[in-house]
Amino acid sequence: MKQLWLFNQINSDLQRVENELTKFVETDYPILQDSAVHLLAAGGKRLRPAFTLLAGKFYGSSSEKLMPVAMALELIHMSSLVHDDVVDASMTRRGRPTVKANWGNIVSVETGDYLLAKSLMLIAKIDHPEVSRILAEVSVEMCQGEIQQIKSSFDVEQNLKQYYYRIKRKTAMLISACCKLGALVSEAPRRQIWALGAYGHSLGMAFQIVDDVLDITAKPSEFGKPIGGDLRQGIMTLPMILALKSSPEPGKLKTLLGKVDKTEDEVAETIGLIKATGAIDDSMHLVDLYVKKAKKHLQDLPKVPTRKALEDLAEFIAVRKF
Amino acid sequence: MKQLWLFNQINSDLQRVENELTKFVETDYPILQDSAVHLLAAGGKRLRPAFTLLAGKFYGSSSEKLMPVAMALELIHMSSLVHDDVVDASMTRRGRPTVKANWGNIVSVETGDYLLAKSLMLIAKIDHPEVSRILAEVSVEMCQGEIQQIKSSFDVEQNLKQYYYRIKRKTAMLISACCKLGALVSEAPRRQIWALGAYGHSLGMAFQIVDDVLDITAKPSEFGKPIGGDLRQGIMTLPMILALKSSPEPGKLKTLLGKVDKTEDEVAETIGLIKATGAIDDSMHLVDLYVKKAKKHLQDLPKVPTRKALEDLAEFIAVRKF
Repeated sequence: MKQLWLFNQINSDLQRVENELTKFVETDYPILQDSAVHLLAAGGKRLRPAFTLLAGKFYGSSSEKLMPVAMALELIHMSSLVHDDVVDASMTRRGRPTVKANWGNIVSVETGDYLLAKSLMLIAKIDHPEVSRILAEVSVEMCQGEIQQIKSSFDVEQNLKQYYYRIKRKTAMLISACCKLGALVSEAPRRQIWALGAYGHSLGMAFQIVDDVLDITAKPSEFGKPIGGDLRQGIMTLPMILALKSSPEPGKLKTLLGKVDKTEDEVAETIGLIKATGAIDDSMHLVDLYVKKAKKHLQDLPKVPTRKALEDLAEFIAVRKF
Repeated sequence: MKQLWLFNQINSDLQRVENELTKFVETDYPILQDSAVHLLAAGGKRLRPAFTLLAGKFYGSSSEKLMPVAMALELIHMSSLVHDDVVDASMTRRGRPTVKANWGNIVSVETGDYLLAKSLMLIAKIDHPEVSRILAEVSVEMCQGEIQQIKSSFDVEQNLKQYYYRIKRKTAMLISACCKLGALVSEAPRRQIWALGAYGHSLGMAFQIVDDVLDITAKPSEFGKPIGGDLRQGIMTLPMILALKSSPEPGKLKTLLGKVDKTEDEVAETIGLIKATGAIDDSMHLVDLYVKKAKKHLQDLPKVPTRKALEDLAEFIAVRKF
């Protein structure tokens, strides 16, 4: 699995998360195991466990203590990815066929349910009321974010408030929880738990905006999936909303954005119209603001090498091309 | 909502579960609330909360203590129903259009996820490690049962062992958990918690077999949904497995059972072939054995009116027509 150099501090722990997850999703029913392991093998950045492990490192927490939390969070994340795939028009995630493409909707649903149920077993074992409460709340909010996305697909009248509502729930809250819980189970001081959670939240917002920008601007070979997926699925993202405000051809852009079943040419044309505005630059400017905000929260934390790793991670989020 | 007279002891509590559930699934996103409330309004027997409440009544537990547990269990059940509907060919459940029929697969997936996430909030609030552990284990096993059902659809070579594996996980384990948890949070003696769990398990097995029989023999007007759904979906149930063993026309029956996209005539013909064997009677005989077993477990419990209610409930499961 591709490891970011930023994770040097926690490389062996991350590898252990990987190994433990693979063993943990073993079932007595091959099809479930196949699809779950297939998902794991697709790799992925394992960002979320990384945040948890790094947050715990501030306080010298043992791997034993952090492992179940990191695993539970990654299982929740994987579960949501699989369920999103049920209607995701994109046929590849991270360059491999999705569970959906291989075996159909219902297996996607059940695989997602299975991964979530396994996370519940870990959460029960962790037996920490606040951990359970935070994860339950995040799960509820993630559903609300996803539903809002479904409800507002191809709705070109969406505003920024709706966009922030959605990316907060789809992405930022879970990343915030990763940071917070790593600190929480390490019995960090409350103020620092809060600071790490706030760092994670700002970083999560930045992360999703970059994702949304890359979906328009990335090179497919680096991205691991075709670009323009949001356009095809009618997911209105920040660059699109901003472009509508400033495009010299707003009517044309609006029509294209709202069009279901766009042709490849129409996708390319829409991308061109968006790029012709300042929307991409403005989006990345907002990313910078969030990254600055994230780094500011880190000031409340002990000045140890781990803090530098988190600062570097924040910067990397902004400049990444995948 | 239609209440069974058997629930007289707990009628007001059941009504309260209903009301609390409706309030609890309120969200800030109408589509989710609409679909969740739509599901609740479809009624349903509310058997699972009833088991929990009755089990708690043995020990004089307050409604306040039992309510979150009863609600969590019903939410888990509803979540699984909604996810099952993603590929359920049956267009009605309890006589109303399914969430799927109205709004599409993805809303079904997210509604199910939302209901499960809400149950997690309750479980976190209950903050009882054994409750969390039991519910997590049941959730994992329910997924395994559902996946096995998917994997083995239209597989006419299935045996009884596979059938029992499936109905244990799809139905019996959750009903067992309902009884067990009602007693557990009531701080019942361990032996009685076990006895109630064993009662629930045997009753759950009986309940599912009756469901499977009714799918073949019921009058649609009483059943609340078209009969023959299992046949159409290729779910091999006990009456079918038994009929294959004893039918004078095994080849014909096998072909029909294994046929995807059966015509209405073919469904009717298959039903006729099954009914022409002793399979229905044999299935009901097994139901009687399970009911007897369930009632036997009740002997370990205090001889109070609640015990009589549970005995009557066991008998009712066997004789019901819906």
